[in-house]
Amino acid sequence: MPADDDLPLSIDAIRAAAERLDGLALRTPLLESPLLNARLGGRLLVKAECLQRTGSFKFRGAYNAVTAAGGRPVVAFSSGNHAQGVAHAAQISNNAATIIMPADAPRTKIENTRAYGAEVVLYDRRNEDREAIGARIAAEQDAVLVRPYDDPLVMAGQGTVGLEIAQQCRALGIVPDVVAAPASGGGLIAGIATAIRDSFPDTELRVAEPAGFDDHARSLERGERVAHGGAGQTICDALMAPIPGELTFVVNRRLLAGGAVVDDEAVRDAMRAAFRFFKLVVEPGGAVALATVLAGVVPARGRTVVAVLSGGNVDAELFRDVLAESPAAR
Amino acid sequence: MPADDDLPLSIDAIRAAAERLDGLALRTPLLESPLLNARLGGRLLVKAECLQRTGSFKFRGAYNAVTAAGGRPVVAFSSGNHAQGVAHAAQISNNAATIIMPADAPRTKIENTRAYGAEVVLYDRRNEDREAIGARIAAEQDAVLVRPYDDPLVMAGQGTVGLEIAQQCRALGIVPDVVAAPASGGGLIAGIATAIRDSFPDTELRVAEPAGFDDHARSLERGERVAHGGAGQTICDALMAPIPGELTFVVNRRLLAGGAVVDDEAVRDAMRAAFRFFKLVVEPGGAVALATVLAGVVPARGRTVVAVLSGGNVDAELFRDVLAESPAAR
Repeated sequence: MPADDDLPLSIDAIRAAAERLDGLALRTPLLESPLLNARLGGRLLVKAECLQRTGSFKFRGAYNAVTAAGGRPVVAFSSGNHAQGVAHAAQISNNAATIIMPADAPRTKIENTRAYGAEVVLYDRRNEDREAIGARIAAEQDAVLVRPYDDPLVMAGQGTVGLEIAQQCRALGIVPDVVAAPASGGGLIAGIATAIRDSFPDTELRVAEPAGFDDHARSLERGERVAHGGAGQTICDALMAPIPGELTFVVNRRLLAGGAVVDDEAVRDAMRAAFRFFKLVVEPGGAVALATVLAGVVPARGRTVVAVLSGGNVDAELFRDVLAESPAAR
Repeated sequence: MPADDDLPLSIDAIRAAAERLDGLALRTPLLESPLLNARLGGRLLVKAECLQRTGSFKFRGAYNAVTAAGGRPVVAFSSGNHAQGVAHAAQISNNAATIIMPADAPRTKIENTRAYGAEVVLYDRRNEDREAIGARIAAEQDAVLVRPYDDPLVMAGQGTVGLEIAQQCRALGIVPDVVAAPASGGGLIAGIATAIRDSFPDTELRVAEPAGFDDHARSLERGERVAHGGAGQTICDALMAPIPGELTFVVNRRLLAGGAVVDDEAVRDAMRAAFRFFKLVVEPGGAVALATVLAGVVPARGRTVVAVLSGGNVDAELFRDVLAESPAAR
């Protein structure tokens, strides 16, 4: 394996982000359930980023990038979690924020983004180009565009999740066999991979995706960035980026063992398991890594597995619908 | 105020429990929501004991008592959370456990207690005396009865919740104006009060109860233990003890400022708020302290308030039913 100093993300950048976030980002707990462990015949730990400020890990990268913008306005486009992360980071740092969101994003995500004080611009996901809208607003306001993943500062902020996992595993005296995390553009898993690899070079790193939106799994197999095709539907509103990020994929191609793909039914099952065994509200996209473990795509038997629960911003109506189905059968 | 060395619970006993629980009990996070704080016009922190092993704080006191039983079998009666706490503590310590539970306890609680390896004996809450059943089994098996609250070791274990709150508040640089926690027999609030008072002697301590089951509020007003009457119904299955514990009330009478009572509608509203703002699954009894804050019974405006979310063991059916109602209106 070649040296990593040619990569766009370093462990030092993650450590610097951790210092900036100290006292602002919640050090989320690493939870386990003896009952679920017994069922799995292994040891599963979940990193509860749904408890993070704004309800997802996105606050970490957003804050790390917004503080670098000085006093300039910031603009971002996002289906919801990055939106809330940037809005709240801007609120804390006293930067003006404009967030471009698809009109069909979960209602809670839109409402909360507004409640953090950001101006929200809605667009039609099928017929309008969010990048163009973002570029126009950035030019008009002399604003800094905070990208959702293809930004070294954002990736470094998300990497603090991995730094904490490594510290928490060391405190428990364990070396994880696998760490799995969801990906849309790949910033979270790139950051986590960089941090985990620094502490545990032999730990397998897996990117979890919903079926039909498995652009990372395909790209890792091919060794180059390919889109997922995009004809399908998924319950995972947070994981619908069409193709891995350019910068994130440079990192992920080097560090990841491969993908792990599950269907929406497995995701719903994982949301029910998070409810029952961890007392956590996890949104569909946030439950994908857990789903890969529960469905056996990432085997847990006889192993120690860490799954990142990346967000919890789900509307009550959908959550009720998921809970109504037959209990998790494993 | 008289000295406290005549009380059945000391800060030293809580510190000793914390040492025994170190590495076993989860140090649960103290969470806050900027969005909810803005609505309240104050600062609300919730202690997420629903994330504790077994889904409630009860594991703390149970483990502290079970380890004192040596290798002898243990027996306990409980509507569910103490049951799971004792069952899991006994499993960890390799003690045999028999748990006496009402036949109408939430299904999840009964199933989980069995899954922790305990033998479950069901009884009819209206026509049978659980204390008599417990005494009989204890005599037959030469077992140690682990009481749900009236036991100094159990109270000391629950007090570690307060020890952590005090440490977490100090780390955040805040002095809470109020700490509120639910009560059934009063062990949790007695433990918390003892710990908080040691660090923050001026903090107001409130016991939260559902309407119709406000035996602590009434007893504190009267200065002596009185029962709640017991004719009513409540959604809070965990908080149905008829009268404060003898030992717990000695502590609570000395340290608490008084009660705080809310109806079931306020409890449901608090469960929805925990879902939306904290991404936590909280059972009805676990949400009562939060309910007192959201309903304004414990005012938060301009103050710093800590509410303990004491448990999360709620059946999916009830949780769905609560989420179906109109969103939290505050």
